[in-house]
Amino acid sequence: MRRGKFITLEGGEGVGKSTNLQFITGWLRDRDIAFIQTREPGGTPLAEELRELLLCNRDEAVDPTAELLMVFAARAQHIARVIEPALARGDWVICDRFTDATYAYQGGGRQLDRTLIAQLEQTVQGDLRPDRVLLLDLDPQTGLARAADIGAADRFENEQLAFFLRVRAAYRERAEAAPESYAVIDASQPLEQVQRQLQTELERLVLPTSE
Amino acid sequence: MRRGKFITLEGGEGVGKSTNLQFITGWLRDRDIAFIQTREPGGTPLAEELRELLLCNRDEAVDPTAELLMVFAARAQHIARVIEPALARGDWVICDRFTDATYAYQGGGRQLDRTLIAQLEQTVQGDLRPDRVLLLDLDPQTGLARAADIGAADRFENEQLAFFLRVRAAYRERAEAAPESYAVIDASQPLEQVQRQLQTELERLVLPTSE
Repeated sequence: MRRGKFITLEGGEGVGKSTNLQFITGWLRDRDIAFIQTREPGGTPLAEELRELLLCNRDEAVDPTAELLMVFAARAQHIARVIEPALARGDWVICDRFTDATYAYQGGGRQLDRTLIAQLEQTVQGDLRPDRVLLLDLDPQTGLARAADIGAADRFENEQLAFFLRVRAAYRERAEAAPESYAVIDASQPLEQVQRQLQTELERLVLPTSE
Repeated sequence: MRRGKFITLEGGEGVGKSTNLQFITGWLRDRDIAFIQTREPGGTPLAEELRELLLCNRDEAVDPTAELLMVFAARAQHIARVIEPALARGDWVICDRFTDATYAYQGGGRQLDRTLIAQLEQTVQGDLRPDRVLLLDLDPQTGLARAADIGAADRFENEQLAFFLRVRAAYRERAEAAPESYAVIDASQPLEQVQRQLQTELERLVLPTSE
């Protein structure tokens, strides 16, 4: 059995992840590629409960290391129960955010030590890395204005602009350091252009040469 | 301001922690020693929510690494919000279970890598270690029989005897490796004898020579 492809969609607030996830899953369906769509933090009942604890606004200040460990706890559960079994049976996994988001939000946004994040990544993921990270890149001012129309802000969305500038910088830094693993897509373009680029990326992933 | 003492009470199921915690806090009250009583996992609203996720029985198998990271996430929050501030203002902290329980339950019981536990301990605690660990030691058969009378079993209490034998062995191993930090108290003794030993330990901690 050939292992499935592991694709993550990344980006800050208001970059258009939901719309583009629909496009990606529609494209896979049209080609009869078996896949699961999932998200982080979350993807299992326990991991979704951790997501709720992470995102909900609370009076208690959350220690950044506690936050980081909760993110990786949810990830360990998600990988063990959902991601690894799917990839092993040959399904593609389309995941709305993954470890790049941890480097961006907890590493960039919260300014936590990247070495610690890398250690936890190794502990929790072993060799598991996305086959391709689709990074929707957008300046935070534009993104936050878009996101504000969607609904009530969670604990992360309530952060200040400086936080989101660090998030974006950390995402871009990750992509620049390993360009072979990332597709950086300018999310300020008209949607058709964004999706043309997504399609090119997906077509590359189904080519036998990309094995 | 002199830092408070950090005392943890450890042991498996049914060793009598609740009764002996009352004895310890009564002793401190009689001597006008300012203290807080707290517990792990838990001790803050967020950490108590994590406790609930950890202990509740669920259909979903919990990945052992996810469990370990949740324990340390709760601990990071507990230290930042409760334990460190209390010790810094000079209060004693009496904690019902702490990191020795992680070595015992996740290291011994779940057989997770002790090196990983030690790394997380260092990350989350820095130099913070208990001034004294009071370990109530009891053979698990006796302890489980006592605990069965108390109420419905949680996710840990539903484990098999072999699990609890490993928990006890891991606790004793920790105490044997660093006898200067542990008081191992035979919890099969009559309560007065257990409490006489606890009192001796507490008296030692208030002596100026123990500074």
